[in-house]
Formats: sequence, structure tokens, C-alpha cells
Amino acid sequence: MPDGFTDIGFAKVDTDRRARCGFAEVIFGQGKTPAQVAAIARIILDKEHTLIVSRATPEQHAAVHAEHPDALWHEAARCITIERQKLPALPGTVAIVCAGTSDLPVADEAAVTLHLFGAKVQRITDVGVAGIHRLLAVRDTLEAATVIIVVAGMEGALPSAVAGLVSRPVIAVPTSIGYGASFGGLAALLGMLNSCGSGVTVVNIDNGFGAAYAAAQILKVGSPS
Amino acid sequence: MPDGFTDIGFAKVDTDRRARCGFAEVIFGQGKTPAQVAAIARIILDKEHTLIVSRATPEQHAAVHAEHPDALWHEAARCITIERQKLPALPGTVAIVCAGTSDLPVADEAAVTLHLFGAKVQRITDVGVAGIHRLLAVRDTLEAATVIIVVAGMEGALPSAVAGLVSRPVIAVPTSIGYGASFGGLAALLGMLNSCGSGVTVVNIDNGFGAAYAAAQILKVGSPS
Amino acid sequence: MPDGFTDIGFAKVDTDRRARCGFAEVIFGQGKTPAQVAAIARIILDKEHTLIVSRATPEQHAAVHAEHPDALWHEAARCITIERQKLPALPGTVAIVCAGTSDLPVADEAAVTLHLFGAKVQRITDVGVAGIHRLLAVRDTLEAATVIIVVAGMEGALPSAVAGLVSRPVIAVPTSIGYGASFGGLAALLGMLNSCGSGVTVVNIDNGFGAAYAAAQILKVGSPS
Amino acid sequence: MPDGFTDIGFAKVDTDRRARCGFAEVIFGQGKTPAQVAAIARIILDKEHTLIVSRATPEQHAAVHAEHPDALWHEAARCITIERQKLPALPGTVAIVCAGTSDLPVADEAAVTLHLFGAKVQRITDVGVAGIHRLLAVRDTLEAATVIIVVAGMEGALPSAVAGLVSRPVIAVPTSIGYGASFGGLAALLGMLNSCGSGVTVVNIDNGFGAAYAAAQILKVGSPS
Amino acid sequence: MPDGFTDIGFAKVDTDRRARCGFAEVIFGQGKTPAQVAAIARIILDKEHTLIVSRATPEQHAAVHAEHPDALWHEAARCITIERQKLPALPGTVAIVCAGTSDLPVADEAAVTLHLFGAKVQRITDVGVAGIHRLLAVRDTLEAATVIIVVAGMEGALPSAVAGLVSRPVIAVPTSIGYGASFGGLAALLGMLNSCGSGVTVVNIDNGFGAAYAAAQILKVGSPS
Amino acid sequence: MPDGFTDIGFAKVDTDRRARCGFAEVIFGQGKTPAQVAAIARIILDKEHTLIVSRATPEQHAAVHAEHPDALWHEAARCITIERQKLPALPGTVAIVCAGTSDLPVADEAAVTLHLFGAKVQRITDVGVAGIHRLLAVRDTLEAATVIIVVAGMEGALPSAVAGLVSRPVIAVPTSIGYGASFGGLAALLGMLNSCGSGVTVVNIDNGFGAAYAAAQILKVGSPS
Amino acid sequence: MPDGFTDIGFAKVDTDRRARCGFAEVIFGQGKTPAQVAAIARIILDKEHTLIVSRATPEQHAAVHAEHPDALWHEAARCITIERQKLPALPGTVAIVCAGTSDLPVADEAAVTLHLFGAKVQRITDVGVAGIHRLLAVRDTLEAATVIIVVAGMEGALPSAVAGLVSRPVIAVPTSIGYGASFGGLAALLGMLNSCGSGVTVVNIDNGFGAAYAAAQILKVGSPS
Amino acid sequence: MPDGFTDIGFAKVDTDRRARCGFAEVIFGQGKTPAQVAAIARIILDKEHTLIVSRATPEQHAAVHAEHPDALWHEAARCITIERQKLPALPGTVAIVCAGTSDLPVADEAAVTLHLFGAKVQRITDVGVAGIHRLLAVRDTLEAATVIIVVAGMEGALPSAVAGLVSRPVIAVPTSIGYGASFGGLAALLGMLNSCGSGVTVVNIDNGFGAAYAAAQILKVGSPS
Repeated sequence: MPDGFTDIGFAKVDTDRRARCGFAEVIFGQGKTPAQVAAIARIILDKEHTLIVSRATPEQHAAVHAEHPDALWHEAARCITIERQKLPALPGTVAIVCAGTSDLPVADEAAVTLHLFGAKVQRITDVGVAGIHRLLAVRDTLEAATVIIVVAGMEGALPSAVAGLVSRPVIAVPTSIGYGASFGGLAALLGMLNSCGSGVTVVNIDNGFGAAYAAAQILKVGSPS
Repeated sequence: MPDGFTDIGFAKVDTDRRARCGFAEVIFGQGKTPAQVAAIARIILDKEHTLIVSRATPEQHAAVHAEHPDALWHEAARCITIERQKLPALPGTVAIVCAGTSDLPVADEAAVTLHLFGAKVQRITDVGVAGIHRLLAVRDTLEAATVIIVVAGMEGALPSAVAGLVSRPVIAVPTSIGYGASFGGLAALLGMLNSCGSGVTVVNIDNGFGAAYAAAQILKVGSPS
Repeated sequence: MPDGFTDIGFAKVDTDRRARCGFAEVIFGQGKTPAQVAAIARIILDKEHTLIVSRATPEQHAAVHAEHPDALWHEAARCITIERQKLPALPGTVAIVCAGTSDLPVADEAAVTLHLFGAKVQRITDVGVAGIHRLLAVRDTLEAATVIIVVAGMEGALPSAVAGLVSRPVIAVPTSIGYGASFGGLAALLGMLNSCGSGVTVVNIDNGFGAAYAAAQILKVGSPS
Repeated sequence: MPDGFTDIGFAKVDTDRRARCGFAEVIFGQGKTPAQVAAIARIILDKEHTLIVSRATPEQHAAVHAEHPDALWHEAARCITIERQKLPALPGTVAIVCAGTSDLPVADEAAVTLHLFGAKVQRITDVGVAGIHRLLAVRDTLEAATVIIVVAGMEGALPSAVAGLVSRPVIAVPTSIGYGASFGGLAALLGMLNSCGSGVTVVNIDNGFGAAYAAAQILKVGSPS
Repeated sequence: MPDGFTDIGFAKVDTDRRARCGFAEVIFGQGKTPAQVAAIARIILDKEHTLIVSRATPEQHAAVHAEHPDALWHEAARCITIERQKLPALPGTVAIVCAGTSDLPVADEAAVTLHLFGAKVQRITDVGVAGIHRLLAVRDTLEAATVIIVVAGMEGALPSAVAGLVSRPVIAVPTSIGYGASFGGLAALLGMLNSCGSGVTVVNIDNGFGAAYAAAQILKVGSPS
Repeated sequence: MPDGFTDIGFAKVDTDRRARCGFAEVIFGQGKTPAQVAAIARIILDKEHTLIVSRATPEQHAAVHAEHPDALWHEAARCITIERQKLPALPGTVAIVCAGTSDLPVADEAAVTLHLFGAKVQRITDVGVAGIHRLLAVRDTLEAATVIIVVAGMEGALPSAVAGLVSRPVIAVPTSIGYGASFGGLAALLGMLNSCGSGVTVVNIDNGFGAAYAAAQILKVGSPS
Repeated sequence: MPDGFTDIGFAKVDTDRRARCGFAEVIFGQGKTPAQVAAIARIILDKEHTLIVSRATPEQHAAVHAEHPDALWHEAARCITIERQKLPALPGTVAIVCAGTSDLPVADEAAVTLHLFGAKVQRITDVGVAGIHRLLAVRDTLEAATVIIVVAGMEGALPSAVAGLVSRPVIAVPTSIGYGASFGGLAALLGMLNSCGSGVTVVNIDNGFGAAYAAAQILKVGSPS
Repeated sequence: MPDGFTDIGFAKVDTDRRARCGFAEVIFGQGKTPAQVAAIARIILDKEHTLIVSRATPEQHAAVHAEHPDALWHEAARCITIERQKLPALPGTVAIVCAGTSDLPVADEAAVTLHLFGAKVQRITDVGVAGIHRLLAVRDTLEAATVIIVVAGMEGALPSAVAGLVSRPVIAVPTSIGYGASFGGLAALLGMLNSCGSGVTVVNIDNGFGAAYAAAQILKVGSPS
């Protein structure tokens, strides 16, 4: 049972996560000091060729970058990534569909994650249900994907429409885009959980990373292994 | 200023409501005893040829029917109506669109109300966004209507799709159809309030009557008077 | 079926929205970069003579203004507008009624939108129910309007009082004015959804634009066409 | 310090409450067995000439009535009362104002309590803000009262209107009348807490008893003592 | 019927409020520009000798002070007041009781208001239920008051304890002091609404002004008039 | 574009759903009359060899069974199924993991659905995190599955623990098992949405059907197609 | 590592719970069939001399009683217990303090559990903060206890007062006693979480069992072992 | 009855708290001015050798430090402490267990408090349930503790896992770490309240101090006295 870890006092870095779960440990940046992020990154990079820090800050990036000049900063996605060697390519394609332009940062977080994980990504943007012909126009592209991530704020209706059009797994990501009775993304979240489109699954508000991770796990279902 | 009323102790019946607001007072059945409903009905029928009791019970209908054998009971819509003389026909048509079969009782309440108010009604049922081609198939009918009432539970996405297809006022009615994170219709309500379809207005959960009343007021905008 | 759009990567601009819905696409500013807003504006202005960006920022205005010196900035309403040619005048009048002076920015957003859409607007301010005689004093003005938009924060009681006085469609806009148990406008929103004034319809908190759009759709009901 | 009590195991009956607080202990019926209510009643009646059990059940009444045949059952108000000797009359009058007929049971609870406490009560029913002329018609009666209890469900707007008309303390009681986004009286409660009518104070949803108790305490401010 | 007002476009100043309600109109500062506050103040001061602006900002004070050098700024209470002539003294005393030192700003708002209204105020601070002996030590002072305002954050338990000790009207003010599951004062608000101390009435979170206004109305019940 | 439907008035049966989405339309029983369910079933069975009605009632089963004696009733799962011919077997296995015995009905709904869809199911029950060794004991079984559905009420912690052990897609189903601050499954739902186990996706409370549908879509990713 | 369990298909009975956690597995009755409860009980009683089923139903008791005639039914506490041999006595005493008579069923659940676990229990009932002298009268009894469980509904203020009087661990149990804005015990829960009495810890609404379990764990801290 | 206090106007410092409750009064910094904190500190230090100010600001520390140069500032824990003489050592050990590195500041607040109270502390960090082997690795350390404080954000699942492993009192502290549907720690709070691990008790979100205080009270149960 590959269950080791490295204890550095303020963290027990789970160095066998990739063996168990398929992907190495990802650093969740929120609430950590830049020094803590840098120290955890150091441990992970001892064993891994890639690194991802989600919900990161520019200060955290600076701390990591000081030690690892190949650490990239993804402004919109708020991610730090390092890719020293490509992970094996995953089969199939993930379509990342956005209801509106304002939802792009969350979609970017998903895309950055998937690229690092070795997945092929197909981006489709601004196909909200208030102009449903824009969605119908990309129907074939959707059906051609292996998994579909649908990112939407406001009423979060897009996943229902997508799920009704195609025979692919649909992962819905509510975003905090909206105001008033959007309640920080709650309206979109509830909408997606109550989707009349069968088989839609949902992740946390603005959690592009989580959707990407789930999509990558699904892609592996199609692996020859 | 037509502001009279008849005081019967437990109620001050607003006998000039029609002069002020265009329609006579409607009895809200919830929380009233059958005897109270019957007494208020008596006062209204002294001056009016029509009566509507919303959120009514079979017991309230029995009490009214005992005095007024022409009092009809609308099971699904939970309404009592009396129509002794048709109200003047309102111009135009109201389309009542339902996302699913389960939303029909709320749509029925709207339809019963509109018929009594003299409006022409066009019913369209089961065109939820998970099978969007069913909605596109009725696009011309929608555009032909003067006002559109859209009734939907679960994620409440249908009004956004309708509002993006047509140039008509859209009144959205969330229903309590759903379970779990539907929270009694809250998900549909929030979805409709956050609609990305411009100009959608919303009434209370399951409030088919309110949507009908608003639609009737809009029809009158088209009156020659 | 007039369902074209222009794909510029981060947006699919819905260039046939006016043909379908009666008004051209409106840019929702929140969450978009100034460059994105400017780019979308460019596409819209290729086909349209008017432009409106709601929930905009001064930075977005600067970006649009740099290309289009006729782009106006409406500080209180947080809107950018361009009007190169007046849209055809809509019949009737929209009364915009405010409960208090603090609700004015939301009313301004509604007014800016309606002016651009070719509607006549009648403003009435500070007639909250705690001094109901101020409302009664404008009763004739209200009845003379074709549609009434009622803007109110705190307990959101004004739409009920207005709906009980007149025979016009009433669109209620809750505002986030208040504190404590106002919960960012939730109290006003719930108050309006539960209005005892028949036929009140409601839009999202602070959504002056949405109310204006709905009012304009209603005005068109009265058009000779 | 008059702080005695009688301990009967499952209750410590506060026999000096009247000395401290002005009124004897009131039994809160909810969640108590009929036998428990009867036992507590016995202790209280040892020292007092009056008794009130709020939120009572018919079974609790039966148990009390078996021992005290003068125990009355107030169906709508869900109260048990015994009055063997009138309490000293309180100065002034309490107006109990109801928005609608459906709010009557809560108003009844307030009235039953006030009568027992020796207060004069003036009932005014069905003066909701959707027919504001009905409220204006009773303006003099309101101003003639010493304290005003306003009972309203749905959007709970009536207290604001009353507080803006008179110079009397206004106690607002939200009721659970309504449906959907009324959320069991939450909408009315929030509306009243955010009232633009200065000086409105609020009690719990459906708490007619609490409003009556507070009103009685206020009446005593006017006592010569 | 003393129902005049002065219309200055963005406000209809209710110049007969004092005749109707006993106190002149109070300006609610939130959401108003300094210029708007100054203009409304000007109208009120034409007829009144006192002025109060609640929820004010230093900028609003500067604008009022520029025209009226006797305008005072109450930092903690966030109020502007002007007092050119004392209002007639109200009979009795209002005790303002605070659970903790952190609740003082809200108590200050109540005190500033009451002083201006001509009421005598007795301040008692830091007598929270976690050291109940501190409350018992001031029991006589509490009983000597005519009305008691109880200000408390966190769990809001103090009003229940006070109401169980005395025979005076108790007005509870929840404050936003607390964190986590205090949810901005919601915990204290709900606690007070569910008080087991009979007759406690409640105002909005942090609403010291409203409590003071209600207390002043109650004091007038004791007036000889 | 296979977008046909059969219009029977109260429903537009989506007869091409299988062509588009991979599985035929499923009847959502809630809120439909037995007659409506039977009528929709008739249309579907014209084209399909299998039928599933979710959220069904015994009355609805009786109505369907009267016409189709092969209609089975799944008591715990509240489903009606008909299987006249097996659907093609899906590759792989779905593990359905339950935190506790009380969560079984929701797991049953998932299992019934998957069996009908042609999926192989592996059931694991009562491995909640309060006895984590029970989960570790089935670790190999979990890793051997293609997709894992995790059903849990109360705090909903099981999906996090499972996701940290294996490299498979994890679909979490919160259940309404619990009381008090479980708020009908809300606690479990929020827990799962905030899972620290990367890649967990979530469906609505008690939505075993939805989880099964999503799992079946994922199984198809592994199809040789 | 004592981590065995017995797998009976619908349950994995954790037969080493007592070795790990100090007490044998407790059956949570909610959502289980009588047959399931009986089967699990059978496994537990193979190794243990005591049994407790919480949140049980009379039907579950009947099923257990049929096999084990010494199974007791605790009506108010909704528990089934079997005690064939007394567990070793725990040192010290647990005081179970109730705010009101209506909270007794929850206190009973705690008492039944503690008795079975070998703890000495001291009951104190009806000492809510609205008659604080009743609490002060039992101060010595409270201080003499080792741990104090405080059970209260409505505003849940009692734990704060108790924690301020004594130097003992205080475990607070909110109850669902109350109505309206009590929201099923939410008000009491939030009150207790925000207690100004230092060191109060809280369990779920109506969770007398959980409080008893925690108290028993604390008693063991005082054990000589 | 040791119930003295020192009244300094804006505070009644509870100088006998230690005699009653075991620990001297702790200053709650939130909402107090630096001068107020310094003044209260002065009173407490007249009688005590230790001081703690929780939820403090650097400005408050500066004010206290100016008078007491031995006042320490704990950045992460946001506490001020003074320790002029060690308090008597408490028996046993408190384990403070963190789910993730981001939860450390809350754990620090608990540790600072416990050190000052004379308790021995054992820190364990980053053992969240998504890598459960890290928790199993410290099982012996956990069992060796007298009390266990478990600090966790996001879904708050760690306390359930810990409570299922050991026979020690478990105090759970939800943190506000998370985003979206974490709702500021609400998800973790609800998760912990619904823990399937028997006997878990919970304190307010981010309330490390409260957990420490409760743990210290429990340690005293093991005192020889």
C-alpha cells in the first residue's frame, strides 16, 4: 500500500498520492504563507516533474519562482504550474464550455489543470441559453468530446441544455458571476444540482480545478491499460 | 377616488378594487374558514358577475357552492370560480408554457384565472431545456403570443431560453417541483431571478394566479381605450 | 430563423438578437476585462447604432471611449451608452417610482436603459410607505403611465401599495439599500415576491436594467404593428 | 428580592414572577404532556386567580378542564385561560390591527392575552396595504389607541404604513400566512425588521402572545402609580 | 390631516412627520450623496430646531457642517445632529443596557437619538450573562427605568435575563459583534426573537436608532397630555 | 438531427432521447397523476424495450402494471422498471458504496437504474469514516471498479476518504439521513461540494438515479465504440 | 489494532468499537427497517452485554423485543436499551440541566445513555434564564458535578449563564423547541455556538445521545487508570 | 459567592472569574478601541499574573505593550498574551490536530491559549481524510492524549475519523478555509455537528480559543484535587 508521506512540521506532504490516486498532490494555496507553499513545492518536486498550486497568489508565485525559475503564473486562473516533463497523454478530449465571457477565469483554471495532466482540451465560449442557437451550432463538437465541462454563472442553466443534446458525461461548474440573488454563485449551484438534464454532476462554485481533475479521471476510463 | 369597502367585521371587502385596479377583489383562501370565504364571496357577488378564490380548499368550495350552485371547483388549480357573465374580452393571447408535465397544476391556476379575466390562452406543455428541440418546435406559437407565462420547477431554466427566442414580455413562475436542493422551489426561483435572458420578471413560487394577473394587466396595454 | 453570431474567440456576439428579441445584445460588464468589453462593443456597433454596457466600470468605459468618443459614462447607473441614432419611439410612458432617495442609482440604471430604447420616462422619487400621502399625491401620474417600475430597498413594501392603487403592470426592483437583516436586499426581494398587491412581478436585486427591458417589451404590446 | 419557586421535579414553577415582572408565569404548552400542563397549572392557581396556557392543544385543555371546569378553550388562538377574578384594569387601549382575515388567529391570541391582563382592546381587521384607503379610514381610531399591535403575513408591509401615520408605539407580529418564498413567515419577519417606519419593534412569527405581553407592559407606563 | 411635503426632485421631504408621528423626519444617510443629505437637511431645518442623520458618513457631516456650523459629528454612533432648541423633556427614563464593551457604538446611537428627543438616559454597560452577578447588581436601576433598551451581540441572551427580572418594556437590539456562526448578527437576532423572556420586542441588527425611537414613543405613553 | 417527439397534450415525449443522449427518456414520477405516467409509459414503450419511472408512487405503479404486467415495483428505490430485452452490456463495473445502512434506499435507486442500463454493479455497504478500517478493508474492490458512487448522509465525509484512496472517478450522493443541523441533507451536500478529495463530483440530495446515469455515461467512455 | 467487523450484507457491524473508542457500537435507528435493527442488535449482543438504539421507533423495539425480551423501550427518549450486566461505574457525576419542561425528552435521551454507560446522573430541570434565581439556587449542585450537559431550546441562552457560574466543562444541546424564527432549533444552535460563556461546546440539535457520549468520554479523564 | 467586579464605565471587569470559572477573564478584542483594551488589561493585571486578549489587532497590542512591555503579539493567532508567572500545570496533554496547513492560524490560537493555561500541547498537522494513512500513522499519539482538538475547514470531515479511532473527548473547530459553497466555514460547521463519530462536540467557526478553554476545563477533571 503506497502510503508514504514527508513530514515537514506544518505539512505532511503526501508523496504517494500519484501512486494511489493517479495524480501527484496538488497544493491548495488559500491560507498558506508563500514560504509554506515554497517548502511544500520543494518536497513534491523532489519526486515529481510537474507541480500545480491552485487558488494561489502572486506572492506565492514569487516565492516558488525564486527557487524554480520555470514556475509559471496564470493570472486569470490564479494558478502556479511547473512542467519539467510532460505527463503521459490521456486519451480523448475534454470540451470546456462557457456560458459567458465573464466565466472565462474559471474555465482557464480547468484548462491549465487539464493541460498539465496531459489531456487534450477543446474550448467553447459564450454559448449561454439566452442565445441557444450558439449552442446548437457547436453540437457536433460537443458530441465529439469525451467529457464535457460546463462553466456557467447566473442561473446556471447551460449544463441542462448540454446534457439534453449529447451522450457524454457532463461536469457542471457554477461560477460566482452574477449579483443580488445570485448570492455568490448559490443560484447557479442550486440550478445545476436540480438540473433536469440527466446525469449532470456538479463541483463547488468556481472550482475549475476540481472539474478538470474529475474529467481527467474519466479520460483514464478510456485508457487501454 | 373610488375607495369604498364593505366592513363585515372579520374583513373589509374592497368593493371598488375593479374601478381602481381593473379587476375585482380576489379571495385568497389560505387560512380562512369556509364560512369566512362564503361571507366575503357574498359581498363581492353583490356587485360583481365573476368570483375567484385562489389557494382554496374543497371545504371552502362546498360552503360557497351551497349558496351559489354555479360555483365551480378546479381540482388541480385549487380554485373556486363563478362566472355569471363574461368579462369583456382582452386583446391578444397569453401563452402558458410548462417545462414539464409535473408543473401543470400551477399552469392550470394561471389558465383558470386568465379565462375568467377574458383573456385568450394558448397552452404549451413539456418543453424543458433538456430537450430543447421541443421548444424550438413551438417558436412561432410563442412569437405569436402577446405575453408569455413560463412555468418551471427544478432548475427553472426555461424562461431564459424562451426570453432569448422571442420579443415578448416573459413572466416566470417557479414551481415547487423537485426535491433535495430544490428547497421547495427556491432553486427555480433563484434561477429565474438570475436569468441571463433579458427582461424576465418573476412571481412567487407556485403563484400561477399572480402571473395570470400580471399578464392580464399587460394585455390591457394593447387595448384601444 | 435569424440566428447568426460573430465568434471572436472569447465571445460569440449574438448579432441577430434585435431581430429575435426586439433589442440588440446588451453587454454585461461584470467580470469582463476592458479589452473584452471594447472588442464586443466593436462587433455590436458594426450592425447597431446604439450600445449599452451594464454593470460597467470606469476602466471599461475608458477602453470603449478610446475607440468611440461618443461613449457616455453614467456614474450612478454604472452604464456605458452610445446612441448614434435614436431607436424608434415606443408608445406610452414608463413611470419609475422610488421609495427613497437612496434607491436612485438603481432607478437611474432603469431610466438610462429606457431612454436608449426609445421609451418615455416619468420619474417619481421618495414616496415610501412611511409617508403614504406622498404616494397618494402622485396617484394620477401613476395611473397615466403605461407601465410602472417600483424601486425600493429595506422592506420593499412600495410595490404592494402601488399595485393596490392602479390598473397598470407593476415591475418591482428590490435594492440592496438597508443593513443588518436586510441581507443585501434579500428582505426587499422576499417582500416583493410575497406582495399582497396582485400582479406584481419582480426582477433581481438592484436590477434596474432588467426592469427597464421588461417594461420596454410591455410598451411594445401597445404598438400599432 | 421576590425570587421563590415551587419545584415539582419536571418544573420549577416561578411563583414570584408577578411580583418581579408584573404578570404571573404563563405556561408555554408546546412539547409538554397534558399531565405536565395540568400539574403546573395547579401550582400557579394556588397563588393566582388567572391562568393562561399558550400554544396549547385540546388534550392539554381537557387535562386542565378536568380539574378546573372554568378553564376555557380558545380554538383559533390555541390558548387555555382561567379567569377567577379580574386583574386590575390597565389604562389606555391596545389596537390590534390585521392585514388580512387570514391573520386573525394570531390576532386572537393577542386579544385573549390582553383581555386576561386587564387591557382594553380595539380590533381592526383587513386593512392591508393593497387597499390603503381601508387603513386611512381607521386613522383616527389608530391615533386614539395607546399602543398598536400590527399583525401581517406575506410581505409584512402594514407596520411601516401604520408607523408613518401615527405617533404611537407599534409592535409588529409577522404571521406564517403565505406560501413559497414566504418561507413560513420569514419574508414578513424580515420586512418588519427592515421597516422604513421609524420605531417599529418586532416579535417572533405568529407570536400574538408576546406582542400582547409587550403591549401590556407599555400600558403600565401610563399608570398613575 | 397634516400631510404636506416639500418636493426637491430627488426627495419629497415629509415636513409634517412631527405632527403625525411625534418626531420630525430623520435622514437615513446610507446611499445618499453628501449634497443630497445637505439639501434635505436644509428643508427640514426650515421648520425644525433639531436634526438627526443616521448611518451618516464624515463626508455627509462635512457637507452639512459647511452650511450649519452647529452640526455635531458622533463618531462611534455615526450620526450627525443639530440641536438649536431643546425638544420638550419626555417623562421617565430609558435604561440602555449593553452586554459588552464592543456593543457600545450601537448603544451610543440610541443614546444620541434619545438625548435629542428630550429623553433622560441611564447607561449600563458590560453586564452580559456570562457574569450574571453584574446584571443582578444593577437590578434596582433597571426597575427604576421606564423602558429598557438591551444591546447585545454574539448569542443575544441578555434581553431574556433582563425581561425575567423586571416589569418594564424591553426593546432588544442585536449587534453584529461576533464572528463565524454569528453571521453578521443573525445569531443574536434569532436569539432575541425566540426569547423565553415574555414581552421582549426586537429591532434590526445594529439599529440603535430604531430602538431609541420606539422607546421615545413609549415614554410619551406616560405623558400627562 | 434526431429530435423528434410525440405530443400527447400534457406531455411531449422525447422519443429520440436515446439517439441523442444514449438512454431513452426516463419518467420523473413526482407531481404526475398515475394516468399521466401510464400514458407517457405507453408512448415510450412503443419504441423502447425498457422503461424506468423514478420518484414513483405505488399508485403510479398500479396504473402502469395494469397495462404492462411486467412492470416491476422497487419499494425502497421507489422506482418502476420494465425490461423486455436487455440493453447492451456496458464495459467495466460501478461500485456503489454506502456510508451506513440507512443510506441503502438511495443506493438501491442507483443500482436499479444501472442494472437496467446494462451496467455491472458492485455493492459495498456501511463503511462510514467513523470506522475507517471497514473502508480500508475494501480498498482493492474500490480500485477494481471503473467508477465509484459514494452515498452518504449526515456529514457526508465518505467521498473525501474514498477519493483519497483510489484513482477512479467518484460521484457523491448526499442523502437526507440525519436530523437537526443536517437540514434535510444540506450538511452532507455542502460537505461533498467542499471535499478535500480532488475530483469528487456531486449530484442532488437523494439522487441515486442521477448518479447512476452519470456513472453509465462514464462507463461508455471505456467502450470500444 | 483492534479493527474487526462482522459483515452481514446491509451492515458491517464494528465489533471492536469498544476496544477502540471505549464504548460498543450504538445503532442509529433512523432510516433502518425493524428487521435490519434486529439483525445488527443480534451481532452486537454476541459480544456485548449492553445495547442502545437511538432515534428508534416502536416498531424497531418490537422487532428487537421479540428476540430479546429484556429490551426496554424509552418512550420520551425514543431509545431501545438492553443491559444484561452493568458496565464499570464511571467516576464523577454528570449534571443534566434543562431550560424548560419541554426540553425533557432530549435530556431523557442523554440520561438513558449515561445510565447505560455507567455514569452517575444529576437532573436539574426548568432553570431557564428568564427566572435566573432558579439557576442560582442550584449553583452548588452544578459546581459539584464533573461535567454539565445543558439542554435548551428557543434562544439557547442557558449554557452561557451556566458557563459563567462554574469551572466545569459545559456541553450544550440545542433543542427544536420553539416556533417561527426558531427554525427547528437553528436559533438555539447559533446562540450556543456564539456563547459568550467561554468553553461551551455544542452538539447537534436534539442530540442528547451525543452530549451523553461526550460527557462519558470526559468522565473517563478522571479515571485512575 | 465570589462575584465581584470593577466598574470602569465602559466595562465591568469580572475580577472573580477565576474563582468561579477556573480561569481569569479573557478580553475579547473585536470591536474594542485600543484604549479600552489597555484599560481593561490594567484592571485584570492588578489581580492576575497572566493576560490574554483574543481576536486582537496590532493596534490593541501596541496600546497594551506601551504599558506592559512584556505583552507578546502572536501574529497568526491574533492574540496578545502576558505571562508573569506560570499558572499551575494542568495534568495530561491536549493534542491539536489540523486537517491542513491552511488551518494552522486557528490551531495556533488554541495552542497559545493552552500554553498560558498551563496545559501540555501536542501538535499534529496536515492529516486530512484525503490521505487517511497520515492520520493512521499518528494514531498512537492521539490515543496518548487526554483531549483532542481537531481543526478543519472545507468539509470538516476529520473529527469523525478521529472520533472513530480513539476513546478520548474530541472537540471540533471548523475553520473558514474554503470558498464557494464553504460559505465562510458553514459547510465545515454543519459537517462537524452531523458527525457520525459519536461524542464529537463543536465550537464556533475559527474559535481556537474556545476549544482550548473547553479542553483545559476537561484536563482539570483529571486533577487530583
